[in-house]
Amino acid sequence: MKSLIIIKIGGNVIDNPDALKQFLTSFRGIYGHKILIHGGGKIATQVAEKLGIQTTMVDGRRITDQPMLDVVTMVYGGLVNKQIVAQLQAIGVDAIGLTGADGNTVLSKKRAVGNIDYGFVGDIEEVNSGQIQYFIRQNLVPVFAPLTYDRSGSLLNTNADTMASAIAVDMAIRNETTLVYCFEKKGVLADPNNEDSVLAELTPESYANYKSQGVISKGMIPKLDNAFSALEKGVRKVIICHANQVAEAVSGSGVGTVLSLGTQE
Amino acid sequence: MKSLIIIKIGGNVIDNPDALKQFLTSFRGIYGHKILIHGGGKIATQVAEKLGIQTTMVDGRRITDQPMLDVVTMVYGGLVNKQIVAQLQAIGVDAIGLTGADGNTVLSKKRAVGNIDYGFVGDIEEVNSGQIQYFIRQNLVPVFAPLTYDRSGSLLNTNADTMASAIAVDMAIRNETTLVYCFEKKGVLADPNNEDSVLAELTPESYANYKSQGVISKGMIPKLDNAFSALEKGVRKVIICHANQVAEAVSGSGVGTVLSLGTQE
Repeated sequence: MKSLIIIKIGGNVIDNPDALKQFLTSFRGIYGHKILIHGGGKIATQVAEKLGIQTTMVDGRRITDQPMLDVVTMVYGGLVNKQIVAQLQAIGVDAIGLTGADGNTVLSKKRAVGNIDYGFVGDIEEVNSGQIQYFIRQNLVPVFAPLTYDRSGSLLNTNADTMASAIAVDMAIRNETTLVYCFEKKGVLADPNNEDSVLAELTPESYANYKSQGVISKGMIPKLDNAFSALEKGVRKVIICHANQVAEAVSGSGVGTVLSLGTQE
Repeated sequence: MKSLIIIKIGGNVIDNPDALKQFLTSFRGIYGHKILIHGGGKIATQVAEKLGIQTTMVDGRRITDQPMLDVVTMVYGGLVNKQIVAQLQAIGVDAIGLTGADGNTVLSKKRAVGNIDYGFVGDIEEVNSGQIQYFIRQNLVPVFAPLTYDRSGSLLNTNADTMASAIAVDMAIRNETTLVYCFEKKGVLADPNNEDSVLAELTPESYANYKSQGVISKGMIPKLDNAFSALEKGVRKVIICHANQVAEAVSGSGVGTVLSLGTQE
């Protein structure tokens, strides 16, 4: 199987033009087939504010009413996505910007209203990996905005971490897939106050230990649970690293935190 | 050669959700390979206004400074393009939304500053018809926003009529290409006050006659000049028709105005 690298970058990289440029240069250095999934960043909130649309967050998640769906469609699907594509093209990466609606690539269902009505938020139901495979076979580099669609004509706001792992799991059927979460730290830290205390490796066992010792803290737990779940579903490796170091992390030069099932190695 | 239908819809259709829905249903009815190019509509001006960005028009053309480029990237490349794609997918058309940067499809150059500085406006230099051909061969339906890019990382605002004819001319090398301009009239009218006075056919000779008689008026002349130029460069047929009648016009049922070189038939 051919190798495939799937990389997710967060909003903090997108909000900083210099950091984004550095990341895209590093991204270009990754050899072979690759896919980028980007988060939203603060621009959507700023644009919404200027348009007089109020942003409501519950537990760190944006409530997406119809005006806010229009804003995220404009900002994530238009401004951020197309700027990344144009910048990648300028450095020789044949990028193609996509939402889940484009080429029918990522289908989702509007989240059922429970205690909280998240509005136009999509939970992924199906990844059309055949279509995505077809793009990468043509040496195109898909760049996904965190938007999916519901088969009935509506786009849905979707968490970029979840979208990255859903795509990775489905692509793992045909590719030796590595999933990389880039963020503003060098990896999973043993001591949140020490930027250099990066844990080089995590297995389900060591992860359980670190959790019980309280070494790995609240904010990282959903991300890591999600990552281990992707490994169990066939993704070969998950790397958590700084956005500037993505090419080194992927080439196995020992930067970042590498998650694997361990026992299978 | 396989036939290919390239359709341009204007802003007036996009500004009216019911008209857009009707158009997309008619568009679905067109058999075979097809490409859609959409204009901008008034939403960009409205969004810009709310964001406190002033819209300056000179001779009916928008001056695109950096804040306005961000707005048109959001609105044309994000909101309008992705809503059209999601609506087409919902009715079974496997659409893929593109700007000229995506897949390196339409390259342009920032217009030189003459008497007027149009700002970030692109004049098309190259259409990557191989890439577009590859999409249609996969039975994808490209949906282009009126944005191109300059090879250096900047998107450029581009006239949708011009983009449609440039794509049609390049695609005509490998396809029997029909270019359709949809608008709010039933075709080119002999009498602007009579909606039913549609001229069924136009050749370079009859066009010259109508112009000298003053039958064809100012606003239509650049559009028709552009259309005849596309015919001279290999496009088989140009049709000018109402957005609701696009499927009938393409199937040759006598609606709309059909432009051809005449002498070759």
